[in-house]
Amino acid sequence: MQRAENRKQIHAVTEPWRREGLKIALVPTMGNLHRGHLSLVEAARREADRVVTSIYVNPAQFGEGEDYASYPRTLEADSLALEQAGCDLLFVPGHNTMYPSGLDHAVRLLASPDLAGVLEGESRPGHFDGVVTVVARLFNLVVPDVAVFGEKDYQQLLVIQRMADDLGYGIRIVPVPTVRETSGLAMSSRNNYLDKAERESAGRLNAILLHAAGQVRSGCENCIQVEQAATARLKELGFQVDYVAVRRAEDLLMPGSGDPDLRVLAAVWSGPTRLIDNVRVIRVGISGH
Amino acid sequence: MQRAENRKQIHAVTEPWRREGLKIALVPTMGNLHRGHLSLVEAARREADRVVTSIYVNPAQFGEGEDYASYPRTLEADSLALEQAGCDLLFVPGHNTMYPSGLDHAVRLLASPDLAGVLEGESRPGHFDGVVTVVARLFNLVVPDVAVFGEKDYQQLLVIQRMADDLGYGIRIVPVPTVRETSGLAMSSRNNYLDKAERESAGRLNAILLHAAGQVRSGCENCIQVEQAATARLKELGFQVDYVAVRRAEDLLMPGSGDPDLRVLAAVWSGPTRLIDNVRVIRVGISGH
Repeated sequence: MQRAENRKQIHAVTEPWRREGLKIALVPTMGNLHRGHLSLVEAARREADRVVTSIYVNPAQFGEGEDYASYPRTLEADSLALEQAGCDLLFVPGHNTMYPSGLDHAVRLLASPDLAGVLEGESRPGHFDGVVTVVARLFNLVVPDVAVFGEKDYQQLLVIQRMADDLGYGIRIVPVPTVRETSGLAMSSRNNYLDKAERESAGRLNAILLHAAGQVRSGCENCIQVEQAATARLKELGFQVDYVAVRRAEDLLMPGSGDPDLRVLAAVWSGPTRLIDNVRVIRVGISGH
Repeated sequence: MQRAENRKQIHAVTEPWRREGLKIALVPTMGNLHRGHLSLVEAARREADRVVTSIYVNPAQFGEGEDYASYPRTLEADSLALEQAGCDLLFVPGHNTMYPSGLDHAVRLLASPDLAGVLEGESRPGHFDGVVTVVARLFNLVVPDVAVFGEKDYQQLLVIQRMADDLGYGIRIVPVPTVRETSGLAMSSRNNYLDKAERESAGRLNAILLHAAGQVRSGCENCIQVEQAATARLKELGFQVDYVAVRRAEDLLMPGSGDPDLRVLAAVWSGPTRLIDNVRVIRVGISGH
């Protein structure tokens, strides 16, 4: 596995690939890699000839009071794991590469307000603007054919897909299903913040979303009642609930009775740790469009 | 000259060029082409092997009450002129290609506040955000090696250069000197709005900026007095003055006494028509950095 820290170094590695006609996949991460990330690398290997994984903890996507400073940074372990997973190039840009004129003076992107203004966007104002800003930079620096993102951050996936479409990037966005622990807990670097008791109850989040999905799937018309029931159950278990929402999978709008392809999404706090998860629902007996 | 209206059509033309190793220059325009634009195409031919000229009147860079609706659209004449100038591909995207999810719902860029908040940015709030949004789209759709912009829109040139640097585009930005009528009037599509008397006096704008530049060059320390004198002269001639400013060429900051490379920039109204112009000043006896 090769390693690059700036555009010139990336270019030196990727230009020969391009001249050979090899397709390049990008896996953007913030490091502290777990099996979820490695499944992104595996997907990238299936979708392209060469895999570039970036590790950059992007200050622009953390809000005030969030965990930017304490976010786990484990570069050497990450590097070993990526090498074993078959990553070809590790891109670890410094702030000078990502924000050459400084964070406050930089050009920024504003994510599409339709997608970025709800759910996570309400809980974390500006978060998705920071995400699309850094992903656009990575797209421009790496110039991949394909970019791979996890469905665990489902709203982020939609926001990035829209950014790629709106800005005319010819980059195919590949979603990858969430990897979970045996308990159902979605893999996340922030799971490291959980103590033993919190980790045990955290697995229940997924079970409750699956239960809600089952209610929606079997024809429950009133999604708001389903959301309320799931919220009540989560509170009983000691979670503080940011939201539980049944939404259309394609655009996160409220589902109409004719929409078959939905998603149940939630964000909760387990003590000081914020957890997000989502599950897919295909409503039976309703045909797609 | 070939013609494309969307990404797929561009790609069909440019991919064979890329496979041959040919370098591609982009000349973004809003059409209504004059000799100034054609000098951009000539520069593009010097800088690259193939030239793509885009024509798109971008609604996002016009403010409320500005001339978006009345901006001159002369596609067939433009197409002939480009063919004669040696342009290889004319790109005329529709709104669906440039803003596939609609202008109000689209991902947007915010230009660097340092550069975009002054001068034109004060007179035309949001203008440069619209400019960088559309130029980033054009960069992503066309994927040029080089992009050519006129120095007549000097602040725009800096804003775009910063956008390209900040977002990690590996695209070389090439500035091209302003083309002028015999009177000194900078070529501009908006000159079409001038009546005969207005057009005659419009040539004086450049003369006054050159005079101001001469004062700065010959050692006048007090740039504000120079700006005030030029403003007074312009008002005498019947112009309404948005600004006359002596600024550092690299970042539009107020010049210190040690800065050799400056620019005198102005925006004025001649009746209902807004004119901009700028001239370079190298202060003698001050060494660069």
